[in-house]
Formats: sequence, structure tokens, C-alpha cells
Amino acid sequence: MIIVLKSGASEADIQGVADEVRQCGYEPHIITGVARTVVAAVGDETTQKTLETLASLPVVENVLPIQKRYKLVSREAQTETTRVQAGPCCFGNRDFHVIAGPCSVENLEQMLTVADAAKAAGATLLRGGAYKPRTSPYDFQGLGEEGLEILQTVKQRTGLPIVTEVVSEADVDPMRKIVDVFQVGARNMMNYSLLGAVARTGLPVLLKRGLAATIEEWFLAAEYLAKQGNSQIILCERGIRTFERATRNTLDISAIAIAKQECNLPVIADPSHAAGRIDIINGLSRAAIAAGADGLMIEVHPHPEKASSDGSQSLNQDQFSRLMQDIHPILTACGRRLPEPAGGSTETDTPTHNLLNRKESQA
Amino acid sequence: MIIVLKSGASEADIQGVADEVRQCGYEPHIITGVARTVVAAVGDETTQKTLETLASLPVVENVLPIQKRYKLVSREAQTETTRVQAGPCCFGNRDFHVIAGPCSVENLEQMLTVADAAKAAGATLLRGGAYKPRTSPYDFQGLGEEGLEILQTVKQRTGLPIVTEVVSEADVDPMRKIVDVFQVGARNMMNYSLLGAVARTGLPVLLKRGLAATIEEWFLAAEYLAKQGNSQIILCERGIRTFERATRNTLDISAIAIAKQECNLPVIADPSHAAGRIDIINGLSRAAIAAGADGLMIEVHPHPEKASSDGSQSLNQDQFSRLMQDIHPILTACGRRLPEPAGGSTETDTPTHNLLNRKESQA
Amino acid sequence: MIIVLKSGASEADIQGVADEVRQCGYEPHIITGVARTVVAAVGDETTQKTLETLASLPVVENVLPIQKRYKLVSREAQTETTRVQAGPCCFGNRDFHVIAGPCSVENLEQMLTVADAAKAAGATLLRGGAYKPRTSPYDFQGLGEEGLEILQTVKQRTGLPIVTEVVSEADVDPMRKIVDVFQVGARNMMNYSLLGAVARTGLPVLLKRGLAATIEEWFLAAEYLAKQGNSQIILCERGIRTFERATRNTLDISAIAIAKQECNLPVIADPSHAAGRIDIINGLSRAAIAAGADGLMIEVHPHPEKASSDGSQSLNQDQFSRLMQDIHPILTACGRRLPEPAGGSTETDTPTHNLLNRKESQA
Amino acid sequence: MIIVLKSGASEADIQGVADEVRQCGYEPHIITGVARTVVAAVGDETTQKTLETLASLPVVENVLPIQKRYKLVSREAQTETTRVQAGPCCFGNRDFHVIAGPCSVENLEQMLTVADAAKAAGATLLRGGAYKPRTSPYDFQGLGEEGLEILQTVKQRTGLPIVTEVVSEADVDPMRKIVDVFQVGARNMMNYSLLGAVARTGLPVLLKRGLAATIEEWFLAAEYLAKQGNSQIILCERGIRTFERATRNTLDISAIAIAKQECNLPVIADPSHAAGRIDIINGLSRAAIAAGADGLMIEVHPHPEKASSDGSQSLNQDQFSRLMQDIHPILTACGRRLPEPAGGSTETDTPTHNLLNRKESQA
Repeated sequence: MIIVLKSGASEADIQGVADEVRQCGYEPHIITGVARTVVAAVGDETTQKTLETLASLPVVENVLPIQKRYKLVSREAQTETTRVQAGPCCFGNRDFHVIAGPCSVENLEQMLTVADAAKAAGATLLRGGAYKPRTSPYDFQGLGEEGLEILQTVKQRTGLPIVTEVVSEADVDPMRKIVDVFQVGARNMMNYSLLGAVARTGLPVLLKRGLAATIEEWFLAAEYLAKQGNSQIILCERGIRTFERATRNTLDISAIAIAKQECNLPVIADPSHAAGRIDIINGLSRAAIAAGADGLMIEVHPHPEKASSDGSQSLNQDQFSRLMQDIHPILTACGRRLPEPAGGSTETDTPTHNLLNRKESQA
Repeated sequence: MIIVLKSGASEADIQGVADEVRQCGYEPHIITGVARTVVAAVGDETTQKTLETLASLPVVENVLPIQKRYKLVSREAQTETTRVQAGPCCFGNRDFHVIAGPCSVENLEQMLTVADAAKAAGATLLRGGAYKPRTSPYDFQGLGEEGLEILQTVKQRTGLPIVTEVVSEADVDPMRKIVDVFQVGARNMMNYSLLGAVARTGLPVLLKRGLAATIEEWFLAAEYLAKQGNSQIILCERGIRTFERATRNTLDISAIAIAKQECNLPVIADPSHAAGRIDIINGLSRAAIAAGADGLMIEVHPHPEKASSDGSQSLNQDQFSRLMQDIHPILTACGRRLPEPAGGSTETDTPTHNLLNRKESQA
Repeated sequence: MIIVLKSGASEADIQGVADEVRQCGYEPHIITGVARTVVAAVGDETTQKTLETLASLPVVENVLPIQKRYKLVSREAQTETTRVQAGPCCFGNRDFHVIAGPCSVENLEQMLTVADAAKAAGATLLRGGAYKPRTSPYDFQGLGEEGLEILQTVKQRTGLPIVTEVVSEADVDPMRKIVDVFQVGARNMMNYSLLGAVARTGLPVLLKRGLAATIEEWFLAAEYLAKQGNSQIILCERGIRTFERATRNTLDISAIAIAKQECNLPVIADPSHAAGRIDIINGLSRAAIAAGADGLMIEVHPHPEKASSDGSQSLNQDQFSRLMQDIHPILTACGRRLPEPAGGSTETDTPTHNLLNRKESQA
Repeated sequence: MIIVLKSGASEADIQGVADEVRQCGYEPHIITGVARTVVAAVGDETTQKTLETLASLPVVENVLPIQKRYKLVSREAQTETTRVQAGPCCFGNRDFHVIAGPCSVENLEQMLTVADAAKAAGATLLRGGAYKPRTSPYDFQGLGEEGLEILQTVKQRTGLPIVTEVVSEADVDPMRKIVDVFQVGARNMMNYSLLGAVARTGLPVLLKRGLAATIEEWFLAAEYLAKQGNSQIILCERGIRTFERATRNTLDISAIAIAKQECNLPVIADPSHAAGRIDIINGLSRAAIAAGADGLMIEVHPHPEKASSDGSQSLNQDQFSRLMQDIHPILTACGRRLPEPAGGSTETDTPTHNLLNRKESQA
């Protein structure tokens, strides 16, 4: 920590600050500058008490932290990317995973239709919300347990592992038998009680970045999970709140590049929630891959115009299929591999992406 | 809802949209403009399915909602401000309440010292966190149940009602016997499960605006509480995230003015969290009152430089006392009354604000 | 400056950084911390080359500036508030000035009507744009020279000094004979060429904060003016861009409090542009005064619904008159005085504010 | 335009609004909804007076514009991308152009060194500022005319066309003989006087998006240029201001995707200014290409740690060379071509990108 003193600080003021620094367990170094005196406090900021409280002293102008506050999830702690095993799917290696499905689970037919189409197009995980955190209490709040049962049926039939959102500690237990990946949504990124409950299941967690969370806060939320002994974490960039109104959120492509560099966890992008409109989802998906993302999460619905939620940003099946074709050359350019979807009882089609892979290996 | 079609929409396109509108339970009105055709959908947007999903139709350029989505907490539903009874304190009338205390409960002595000083200076409720949602898992997370016991003791001795933050549904039951007002923090404003659990206690809820919540989302979070039958809600503006770095957050003074106008709930301001620095707390407090706030929440600590959390924005007791004097002329100008703090077993001082009130009534 | 090195920096790396620091004219102090080594560079950051370029060295993690970069306009340089003389009006003492008028000058009758009404209600300066910087090239761009002539006529008849926006260096000369205060708008706050041209006239400058300028950048824009030898500067907070959509901009009330504390210039608020709606202008005006503002700038139009620009945020004359009554008790509580408007050839009314002053002195 | 009335509007209120609409030249359509009455105004919003002023009527709750306000630069007006000819370089076709060079022109040797290295690595245009708009008046403001002379010399020797920033109308004339592309910086995007002066030269304009300009405002700034008859415009996304502090600005990748779709102008990205740090420039560059960008603008300096400005975000020559290799597979995947740099008197090396192109055509 660097403690900047106000101009005109007396010798007694300076010693007073140095004493406080010492009492907090740090060693003070006084540097007398031209316009300001600065006290550098030497000690481990991640385990000792923060010195930011010293800003309340009248003589202190500012306190600047030096160290990053996350450790377990940092590249400094582990240079290799953590492998996260979500059912048959491994995140964090060369494989590139696309998680597809509707915002909300509405009924079995809808889910089966989407799952088959998504799988045929190359998706390897299925998303769908049974519990929906909605801004208005008058909006559809999800089917709850009935939705979980539908997800289980679809999982059995298609073999696709399930990613679904958890919104309450009370739901963690019933969900753990069914889900392959717990999704913690943007609204709950800082719900540390929920993070604790989810971490203790040992199951993988897809951690969305909060609506207005800084990159460091996002990593620190992951650190909450890791500190509980669960490092099976997939980060998900889904756009941040800005003044711009042409998109629902602003996809922060830099966050993907920074996460790949400073954090040892796999990172995916959710262009659907970022854009809030379908016409730029392909462009954002391609950009995310080029910036280093390990996967995508895409909203797909058989009839977006009739969806219970988020229809305006959902692709229909044809659009999703075109997206998978559109990202293909970028994946290849980035040395990524679209793995085979897991087998399941209803699989009958030849998945599109096989054709694509084949075409390419002939090239 | 207004559905704006793309230029060049055919008659069949227009009829297709009109049909979808009708199927969703609205009556479509087609308006042929110079550059665009628009379909106005007549129906109740708060209870019927949103038509925003129609944005996924290729021919639709944009869908514009017309109605506000909150009802119970709106001034249209109830023109009078809701009276919220927090122990002996009533919010929503002429009374102006100051909630003071440290960020975290640290020990009994600290709490008693602050409570006595705050009360003497004119505060009528005590704040202090037993459960702390902290950005880093390595920061102090609160004393938990021990903290609740301290709060109970201080409440008995001073008579001050207790406002304290709840961060987990699991804590609601143990807390309800002790707290007078449940505080839902900024990080949990969109934790709708927690809102439900808290609302069902019937106790008053202090609902902080989320870090980057729009004013409408804040009112809708209150609507979640009200829809559970609990209208004992105090809104709290605590600053929003912006690009500005001179303050921790940007106090959105307009949100107070708008809340007073469009929402029927009492509204207070938390200048401590907004500013993140002590030197402008007096100015922000005065501004909040002038904009219409019904109260303030102020961080006060006997030794801010040694605080377990948020010391950099905490006033010490002298500073708090000066704040109370500083706001006094503005309160008078606004026709507000600083009520007597509730009696308690340790009260021995003549509270400062009595003197102030007296001075004024003689003037 | 504090230069933070990456973990694992070698002794040679550290010496390399120290050498660069020395070459830039600073004295390096090396502090070996637990997790990071830090090099503190002692020297005058405001006059010497910034060391931020050192961030490009592979071994450097971060460079933290210590000093503020503005000097002439700081309270450290001058503890008294600068007095700015705008025609007969003095900003920076106990007087509180209200600058009123339409967004755009439309015709002589409009301006005379507004000027008389504004003056009668207590305004002491007249605003009105002859050159309008509009977001769309298809919007009304102002009357130009014809507008200036109208302003001159109104000034002669009413005696009110004129505040009007300059948008081009080429207009500075024709304008200087007519205007009392050059307004530099939010869009041009960082147009340093324009700032230079305006400063050289020696006339007072009303400097609006940029749409998304930090407080420090705003002070630095003022420093550009002051460095040219013109310290006749009035700062104007007019709201910043945030994610919030209920208001056109977010009035940053903290900026007013900070400006009063750290900057030696008078500061006013423009709640009309901040709000973009008329129903909260009174609340924002009262808040600005309570936070320490030295004046207000208010859009007033005889028929807002027919205005050429910004009608949605303009008060009509009755609303303006009520605003002046509404702010009165807050002004008194803050010890501010609403001065007499300057005499002019058409003045016939007894200004409202005199009545108000009289009522109060009897109380 | 859609004019939403407040609940409880009387028949007379509604007719009053309809009359105002008619007087402004629009045809009113009244739609009586369940909770609100709405008046749809049919007419051309781009050429007629905006009805937003009607929001000042007490009975009006809100006014919603329907049409976009830019025309000439829209894809609706012209489906093909405009070809912009910058010296020998054509933007808007399959070619992908990299504009490289230092932030500021410092001396001839620096510029020649950079120009040769940039060209060798595949850059096709040279950037370098002679006039620098700096936040602090104490920072280096550029060499001015001496800088222009250096640019001219380097242009003659290397054949690279010159992109350089204009900050004052007064400089347009001296610059037009030397520059190939006028750059309008982020701070001046809304300096409409400067836009006019630059447009009238007929030379290409590189228009950076403002610090906090919406995408629509950016397109409207381009419309200002186009309305003057100059459609030789290159848009440049350079990051926007957000709460995030890990990057200097947040590169808005969606803006590139939206610009390619809704605007008929070529678009490039400036990842250097967006990131403000060198370690993610490669990732952002790749993402920009994948999202559809037609070029890049990259800060390159022989010794970034000694740069007069922006050193912390400048690549050195080796890093730039690696960047060019890094983007190559993405360019190929996107079907883009890196054209040959123009010949010049000092060219002696075989440019790196030729080798790359060759390698690929053999694959």
C-alpha cells in the first residue's frame, strides 16, 4: 500500500501515519517527495488488514493498493489453464464448447426440439432456465421443479450435459442431482452466500460477470468459489452496463483477453445477453473467439417471437445453424476444435459440424 | 407497446405482426407512417405477456414499451407516502431520520460508544453489519451471530432500533427477533429469493439501489416486496457506478427527486457509500435533504482509521456531530423535523439536536 | 509517481527501471515489498515528463501518479474563491446568480418576453444560443449573427448581461463585443484550441463539464484557460453520461461539493440539461444550492412546446417563477443572497424576489 | 413520433396534443389504450421539426422517436460500402489496412525508423500527431508545423500516406497540402465547426468515436461530414468510457458490428487507445477483424518508454511485427487481404507480410 499525505504534513503527522502502518502489521517506508510525502507500507495485502481505512486520517490524501487481491485463480498461482469437466465436456483445453438453448424451459417439446437442433448444429451443452430471476415480478419466473424434470428427461434422451441457473441457496440440493454445471447469473455474482452453497457441491460453476462488476470483482467472486475448494469454474463475459443504448449491454471484449492472461480459468462469452438483439450475435461470437474465448453461450428457441422470456435476443434453429457455420473459419484460424456432442438416445442426425470438420480436413 | 416495422415491410408482413399481437391478447392498430409502419398494441402490459419477443421477427425493427411496469409502489396507485414504522420511528411523514453506526459490528464497546454518541447528536436508528458481503473473500466477513447478540444488547441499553444487513435466506429467521429493519444491500437488490424471504417476515425493509440498477429496476425490486404483501419499504439511494473516479460511486440525486414523485415509498440517502470519502459527506447530505430525502444513513466509527471495513468513508463522533449541525438549517428550510431519539437505559446526555431545536424555536 | 514492478523482477530489472526514472529527472527510491517491488520516483510531476510511459517496460505492472495535475485553479494555490465579474454580476462571493433563458435565440419578441419574466422573477443574467451545436445536422443550428444582434438589443433594453455559447474560433471576435460571458459547451470542453481563443479575450468563461469528463479533466480544462492568463472562469456541472435512462444525464452533485473544496473557481449547476425533463428541476436546483453551488443556469422559454430546441427541459415563465420561490428558503439556509438584477431601460416590475426577501426579513 | 399521455388525460387534453402535432406538420392518430392514450404522429422526422418539445406539456408523459436520424451514411440509403481513397490505399473493399505510427511526431529519425519498420511489417499508412490535444496543459502539445514538415519528408521517402489529427479550424489549410487523411479525434467528434472545415477540403476524414458518444451520435457526426458533400469518411471505434478500470477505455466491439450493418462507411478499430496497455492489443485486434473491421490503427514507437505521449500503450517494432503475424490467420479466415504498402524511395527490405502471404498461398 502507498499512503499519500496531504501537502504540508508535519513531521508529527508523518510519524503518526507510520505508527498506524506499523500497528496494522506493515513496515512503513517514508519517502519525502517534492510536493507530497508518501508512506509505503511493506507487507502482504492479501492476508493482512487493508490500510484503506487510513484514508480517514485528516493528513492522508489517498491510499493506493499495490497488489492484486485474488490469488488462487491467478496465472501467477498456476500458469496452466484449469480443466473444468462438465459431464463429458472438458473446458480449458483446445476444445471449444457451445452451450445452446432457450432462456426459459417452457415445456418438454420445446426443449427436445431445441436440444436436437442445437446438437445437430454442433452445440455440446444445453442451457435452459427453470428458475428465472426477472426484473419485474409480473414476468414469467420459470417452471421451477417441473422445469428441472424436463431438463433431466432431455439430458437422458440427448446426452447433452445441462447448464442451468441457480437463484436460491434452497434450490442447490434439489438441483445437484440433475445439473452438470450450476450457472450463477449476473444479478447474483456478488451473492456470496449462494456462491458458497454452490461451491460446496463440488460441481462446476459457470460464473457470469455482474451487470456492472469490474474485472477484478469478477475474479474475486471466482476466488470465493476457489477458496471453498472448488476450482471447477468457467467465467462468462455477458456484457456490462454503459450509456450506449443500441445494445442491451456492452460486450467487454477486453475482459476476455484479460481473463485469459491474468486468470487461470476457462472463459466463455454470452453474446445473446450482451447484444439483446440477434443481428450482431454472429459478429460478437466471432470476435469473442478471436479474443481467446473457450466457448460460447447462445440463446436458441424454436419460436423466439413466442418465447416466455428474452425472445428478442434468441436465435431460431436456422439462425443458430448459420452461426455455427459462421464461427467455423475463426475457430480453425485460432487452432480450436469443435468436439463431437455426447451421444444420447435420440440422436439420429449427422451433426452439421461434422460435415464442416470433414470439409475442412479435406481442404 | 409500439412495434416499429422495418422500412419496406409488405402488407403480409404487417398482417403477420398484427396476428402475433392479437394472439398475445392485445388489439393491434396499424399506423402507416412516411418512412415506417408502426403497430400499436392496445392491452395491459403489466399483466399480459410482454411483446418484446416480437423484436425477433425479421420485419420488426424495434419494440417500445409504453407503460411503467411497477404498480403497487407507484404514486398512481397511492398518492400518499407510505408510513413505515421501524420500532418507534416513523418514516414517510414530516420526521427526518438519521441512521448512524459503523459498517461492521466489531465488539460491544465499539457499538455502545457509537450508539451513545450518535444518539446524543440526534440519530434515531443504529446501523451495524453482523454479516458483511465483501468483494474479497480475504476481507473481514462480519461477526455473524455474535454480532447479532451485540446489536441486541445495544438495542436494549440505548433503545435505538436496529438496521442491519441480511445476506442469506438462511439468516432471516435468526435475525427477525433482533432487527427492526432488514437492510438489503446493493449487491443483493436483484436477489429476488432473498427479497421474498425478507418480505414474508412482515418487518420493514431498507432496500438499497443496486450498484448499476436503473431507477425503474429499483422500483421493481420494491414491487417484488410489495407483491408479497409487505409495503413497509424504505428506498435508499447509495450512488451508482460511473466512469468518475474521484468518488467511490456517483450519488444520483435525481433518483431521490424522481422516487419522491413517482413512487409512494419513503426514500433516504447513503452519502457515505456514495462518496467513499469523508470530506464531501456534509455537502451530499445537505443536497439529499434539499432534493426531498426522508432520512440519511451515515457511517460512524469511534476510530475510523482502525475500522474492520469502510473506515475511509466513516465519520468519527465529532465529525458526525458537526454533520448534524450542518444539516440543521436545511432541514428547517425544508420543513422537516428531527425527532427525539427513543429512550433507553443508558441515556444520560442531553442530545445535541434538542439544543438545536430549541435554538430554532426561539428564533 | 509510484512504479509497481511485476512479481519476480530481477535485480537488473529493478536497476533498469531506476535508471529510466533518473533519466527522466526524478530520483528513484526502491522499496522491496513482500509480493512486489516498488520504485517511488521523487520529483515534480506537474512540470516534468510523466513516467506513465514506463508502463511499456515488460517488467512494470503499473504506474500510479501521486500528484494532482492542476495547479493554478487549485485551492492549494489560492485558498480564496476567485471573483468572476460578469458585467455587473460578481460570482464567487455571497451572491447567488441565476442565469435564465431559452436554449436557442429564436426572435426578438421571444427573447424580450423571457428576459423580462426572468428578471422579474430574480434572474440576473440572460442565456440564449445564437450558435447551436446539435447532434443532428438536420436540427436547428441557431440564428448565428442575427441571434447575436437580438442578444445585443435585449441586453440594451434589460441591462441583463449575456451568457452565450461559442462553438468556433472564428466566431470569437464578432462575439466579444456583445457577450459578457463566453459559454464553452459540454461538447467542446476538450476543444483546447477554442479554449485558447476564448481565454485570450480576457472575458469571463462559463466552462461546462464534458459529457463524460472526469472532475479532474474538467479542472484541467479550466487550467488551460488559467494558463493563458485568464482566471475569470465559472465552472458548470451539467450532468454526466451514465446507464440511467430516466434522466437525460446524471447530475453529479458530488462534483459540485468537490469543486468547492479543491478548486478556487465559482461553480454553478445546470439542472435543465442534466434532467432533460422539467419535473425534477426544482429538486435538483435545491440540491445544488445545498451542496454549495454559486449559481444556476436554467432553460426558460415562453412556449416550451414550440421551442426550436430543448423544449422538453425548458420551464415556462410561471414554472420559472415558482422555481425561484422554491429555492428561496434553501438559499437563506445557506447564507446566500439573491442580488438585484441590473437596471435596464424596460424594467418596470417589482421583482418577485424582493417580495420574498422582504417576507423573510420580517419572519 | 409516439406521444404517450399521462393516465387520466381528458378528451380536451388529447385534442390539444393532436392540435400541436398537426401544427408541427404531422398527422395525429389517437390510440386509446387500457392504461394510457397514445398519439402517433405521422410525418418525416428527419426533415420536420422534432416533436420532443411536446414533452413539456403537462399531459405528456413521454415522446418516443421512431425513425433513425441519419440518412446519407445509412445502409438504407446505399447498400454498398463507400470506397474511401486515402492516397494509394482504398478502404471499403476486401483490403485490410493497418495504420501504424507513434502518438506524437517527435523528430525525423523517430518517424523514419517507425515508418520503415511499420511498412516492413505490413502497415500501409503512417500515423503521427503534430498537434496533440492533451488533457493537461503541462503535457507535450505536439511539434506543430515542424511536425508537419517531418511528416512530409517521411511521406516522400517511404511513400506511406499520412493520417494525422487536426485540432483547430485554423490548421486545416496548412495541413491539407501534406495529409492524406484528416483525423478528427475523440475529443472533437462533436466539434461541428471543425467537422465542417475538414469536410470542405474534400480529403478523407478518419472520424474517431467520442469518449462517450453513442453509436447514433457517431453516425450523426459522420452525417455532418456527408451533408457537406464529403462522403470520404472512415469510422474509427476507439473505446468508450465505462466504470471498468483495468483498461483505459472499453473497446465497444458491438459498435463495429453495428456500423458494418447500419452504416455504409468503412470502419476501423484503434485498440491502442481502447486498451491503454499493450498486453491485450493483439487480442483486441483479432477480435476487431473477426467482428468485421476494415482496418486497424496501432500506436508504434521505437522506444515506448521514452515516448512524449501514450508510451504505455505503444508497441515497439518487434511487438508490432508479432501483432501483424498474429492477425494474419484471422484476416485469412475473414477473406481479407493485406495489400502491399506503397513503394517509396527508402524501401529496401522485403516486408514481412509478403512472406506471410506467400506462406499462406502455398498452404
